[in-house]
Amino acid sequence: MVRQSELTLPSMKKGFHIITNEVLKAVGVLPETGLLNVFILHTSAALTINENADPTVRHDLDKAFDRLAPENEPYYQHTVEGPDDMPAHIKSIMAGSSVSIPITNGKLNLGSWQGIYLCEFRENATPRKLVMTLLS
Amino acid sequence: MVRQSELTLPSMKKGFHIITNEVLKAVGVLPETGLLNVFILHTSAALTINENADPTVRHDLDKAFDRLAPENEPYYQHTVEGPDDMPAHIKSIMAGSSVSIPITNGKLNLGSWQGIYLCEFRENATPRKLVMTLLS
Amino acid sequence: MVRQSELTLPSMKKGFHIITNEVLKAVGVLPETGLLNVFILHTSAALTINENADPTVRHDLDKAFDRLAPENEPYYQHTVEGPDDMPAHIKSIMAGSSVSIPITNGKLNLGSWQGIYLCEFRENATPRKLVMTLLS
Repeated sequence: MVRQSELTLPSMKKGFHIITNEVLKAVGVLPETGLLNVFILHTSAALTINENADPTVRHDLDKAFDRLAPENEPYYQHTVEGPDDMPAHIKSIMAGSSVSIPITNGKLNLGSWQGIYLCEFRENATPRKLVMTLLS
Repeated sequence: MVRQSELTLPSMKKGFHIITNEVLKAVGVLPETGLLNVFILHTSAALTINENADPTVRHDLDKAFDRLAPENEPYYQHTVEGPDDMPAHIKSIMAGSSVSIPITNGKLNLGSWQGIYLCEFRENATPRKLVMTLLS
Repeated sequence: MVRQSELTLPSMKKGFHIITNEVLKAVGVLPETGLLNVFILHTSAALTINENADPTVRHDLDKAFDRLAPENEPYYQHTVEGPDDMPAHIKSIMAGSSVSIPITNGKLNLGSWQGIYLCEFRENATPRKLVMTLLS
């Protein structure tokens, strides 16, 4: 069986944000066993899974990704959408456009420290649309 | 229901290439609702999703990945397949070996700016084989 | 049809390890056609697919990821779990928390050079739990 739902997240500030609860609410009742794919319809933001506890992890991830894909590199040709746009594309590829998570015993089977992240890579972001596909 | 198809892309030059149309043609008629997984059978090229419009994005991505995984690092031991091979393995892990994309209303549910990319990381690449798995 | 299984890998040393056989043994008989998702229940280790032959590739990957996400960066705030923990979170996002692999003719459809990797990013790692979801 396949069931889909959509979710529009309000615009968030640049950084890594835990969105597990928002995703769960949008998906509704989960099947006993299955797989949930969450997909982002954008190319300057991404989805990933990481630590759901200490907020300093999210602070450090933001800095680390800035260092991996800096603004204003002399070789950038794609500069018309602002200095943070090309780095956002690079970071989005590194983090990924979707996550797939097992569903076990009617629940999202995440480890105790795992949460779903929206990775917002733009300074002045717009709302972000996600598509959830539930396979069971 | 599961349906699979294969696609062999002709050898492309090093860089990021949009292959959405090639994938769609190989998959054929899409179900009303589902998930499409596209998988690459290689370890020095990758698949990802990114901007389908301005070609300067693809130019900058190529340069950015070269900077993230440079050739001729003094610690490389895997040098027998040429200076671009080890960087290609590193980049392939960063970009990923497959993409999963929702199918909604009988169409690939990509955002307006999203396209499927083949990331070719070798200088003298061979044709690349993909496997598409359609779950509905 | 959905079928799930679990696998606990014994603690491994920091680095990239081929686990294709362990995954196959835990999954059991494969369907004729399908998709296998392998998911890791941790945020400081990851799963990816890369070269299954020359061990120097795995050596170089370990060094390359250390260079991409170094220890003791002055901006790190998340330092309570040791100098290798924050780099492990960064690396895990770059490599990814799951892999999805097609199943064709009753076999895992990997390219001749592809293997499933556990990417262990902690120096003193604990056993790692994986969840395999088989869609057919």
